[in-house]
Amino acid sequence: MDKIFIMNLGTTSFKFKFYAFEGENCDVLATGELESVGAAMSHYEISYPDGRTIVDDTPIADHGAAFAHCFAILQRDGIIRDLDEMSAVGYKAVHGGNLSGTCLVDDALIAEMERVTPLAPAHNPIYLNAMKDIRKRFPGLIQVARFETSFHGSIPEKRVTYGVPYQWKEELGIRRYGFHGSSHQYISQTVARLQPGARRIINCHLGGSSSICAVLDGKSVATSMGATLQSGLFNNNRVGDFEPFCLKPIMEHYGYTLDETLNILSKKSGLLGLSGVSNDLRLVMEAADAGNKNAQLAVDTLCDNILGYIGMYAAYLNGLDALVFTGGIGTNSDVLRKKVCENLSYLGLELDEEKNAQRGDGIISTDTSKVTVWRLKTDEESVVAGCVREFLNAQ
Amino acid sequence: MDKIFIMNLGTTSFKFKFYAFEGENCDVLATGELESVGAAMSHYEISYPDGRTIVDDTPIADHGAAFAHCFAILQRDGIIRDLDEMSAVGYKAVHGGNLSGTCLVDDALIAEMERVTPLAPAHNPIYLNAMKDIRKRFPGLIQVARFETSFHGSIPEKRVTYGVPYQWKEELGIRRYGFHGSSHQYISQTVARLQPGARRIINCHLGGSSSICAVLDGKSVATSMGATLQSGLFNNNRVGDFEPFCLKPIMEHYGYTLDETLNILSKKSGLLGLSGVSNDLRLVMEAADAGNKNAQLAVDTLCDNILGYIGMYAAYLNGLDALVFTGGIGTNSDVLRKKVCENLSYLGLELDEEKNAQRGDGIISTDTSKVTVWRLKTDEESVVAGCVREFLNAQ
Repeated sequence: MDKIFIMNLGTTSFKFKFYAFEGENCDVLATGELESVGAAMSHYEISYPDGRTIVDDTPIADHGAAFAHCFAILQRDGIIRDLDEMSAVGYKAVHGGNLSGTCLVDDALIAEMERVTPLAPAHNPIYLNAMKDIRKRFPGLIQVARFETSFHGSIPEKRVTYGVPYQWKEELGIRRYGFHGSSHQYISQTVARLQPGARRIINCHLGGSSSICAVLDGKSVATSMGATLQSGLFNNNRVGDFEPFCLKPIMEHYGYTLDETLNILSKKSGLLGLSGVSNDLRLVMEAADAGNKNAQLAVDTLCDNILGYIGMYAAYLNGLDALVFTGGIGTNSDVLRKKVCENLSYLGLELDEEKNAQRGDGIISTDTSKVTVWRLKTDEESVVAGCVREFLNAQ
Repeated sequence: MDKIFIMNLGTTSFKFKFYAFEGENCDVLATGELESVGAAMSHYEISYPDGRTIVDDTPIADHGAAFAHCFAILQRDGIIRDLDEMSAVGYKAVHGGNLSGTCLVDDALIAEMERVTPLAPAHNPIYLNAMKDIRKRFPGLIQVARFETSFHGSIPEKRVTYGVPYQWKEELGIRRYGFHGSSHQYISQTVARLQPGARRIINCHLGGSSSICAVLDGKSVATSMGATLQSGLFNNNRVGDFEPFCLKPIMEHYGYTLDETLNILSKKSGLLGLSGVSNDLRLVMEAADAGNKNAQLAVDTLCDNILGYIGMYAAYLNGLDALVFTGGIGTNSDVLRKKVCENLSYLGLELDEEKNAQRGDGIISTDTSKVTVWRLKTDEESVVAGCVREFLNAQ
């Protein structure tokens, strides 16, 4: 039996799922979430399949401490005997630069993640700190990283290449990578199961962080994020697609340094910056409904962005068999789904408004629609866990 | 009768067409082109409708001197009597910031063009210098600017808005503007005449500088260039769409300043930077055919970029009635047209390979194609001349 602990880390959040693999079987033994990591007091919830949920507060200094705390609770509750019983911990790691796929966390991996940290300044340091800290606390524990770029390794070279001097790509890795690979892979595999014969799939992973992916025959052939997570669709507080040549006028007018400008683009832009209301689409939509024009503009711009990428990817795929909405926004906002699908009748796509208004996994297009539209919950951790297990088996 | 002298200026080039309007009639009295403006010796060619062409060399210090020289030749050859007979000179001016449409060149216009020069650093200074110099040399002459952004004033706000703090848009004009308006307008009007009923048009203006435009019912609703001419498709030596967050790693790795980095992105990128061969697509294609991999990658990436924008705009238009290729590359490269159209059969588009291989204006799709594909020569100066004449009539 393989017991694998999968981590999904945010700046102040720590989410995990603890898996047990036996033959073809895969069980989730526990799921948990810690909030306010690094604050004076952190809140945590850990749930077991039997319905028990432990809710409590405790001070948690960092992500390493969060793992140690969760491990201690799991041990106390009889979910795991000791550290030897844990086959590995796995990370839904973000940017691995030249490293992709599923890799052992070692000095070389840490060095490469550090090298490309300027491309993922908000994400890589969190994982690097956790990896180093857990290695120090639990030196014998095998750590494995599944990079969020991995699923996009199949994108053709012409579609990851920018119009920059070629040596920048060779020497420095200035190219598109793409992220949210675990989610896009999960949806791709799920649609392959639910709708066999759907060769051309577009998946809209829409949440606090959003990206769109075109899948042909199970392989990613395009995705909206590029070298960094500040590209593509605009996100809750990150800018999305933008022009480098706008930076200087902004710096000169407001007296910002380059770092200050980039900081605003990565923390105070996107939905938040445009609406001036919130980084939460629900609140921005509420404000728009109450007459706030900037909030309405933010909603309209986001939907138009999504529509544009779907159109672009329909051309890359030369048509479309399945369109999927996933992620917090993708599964919950029927308004957004309707707005986006309105302009897609040229593909023969017909949204079923009644089904669209419901909840849960399912088809939300009409029976006569040429494109099947899905609302599906994603499960990134299960993909990472599966990859880590495969990696362990291959060793 | 209105006699109007239209200028199209490049860094070292000066092109003009001299128009006479009488009632509904419009005649071109002369066309000309000067090369190597500012060099020790400039080369010029001026042609008249009767077939005469004057070819000669002379030192021309700047664009103001170029105008004075051309005027003297036209006067000598009896095309114009004196300055009083010239109704106005008109510029195919580039970036007017908050000014759009057809405007008198006055202090306010010059100030606004200067304000947005950081957004069009390679283009606005050329026009500003010419305007100031001609004003000094010919104080009584009416100067009119038709901005290349003008045709795009109809793009919906959501589609010109970036995910940046809203005040950057309000205070500083950080938004998409779009360029090549005269060409996109000319093609839109031409297709309206040649293919009445074509409501949804995509025009690919492909040349040394390239952009794509979506037109609905004669109005621009999307275009690939944004706030600056270094965005959208990659151009002969300009980068096109790129990520601001890539700048710092480049600066740090190569020890460049921000200015140096932007300079490379605007002068040594695009086709030239990627291929390492040339900024001329013909030479890059030759190198690709001879086995140069980077040249092949540059060609493939450009075609893929074009395909992507066509797909995006088909979604914005909810379908497509006409697809047009114009500009030097657009009209001349049957290989590029074929590569781009290959993946558009999902729109019911069928290219006629035989017609595609021919030259001159015409339809290059099959009779059964649901999308009519056109190869059309553009005529930007005629649009500018018409606008200047309308402006004069309205005074």
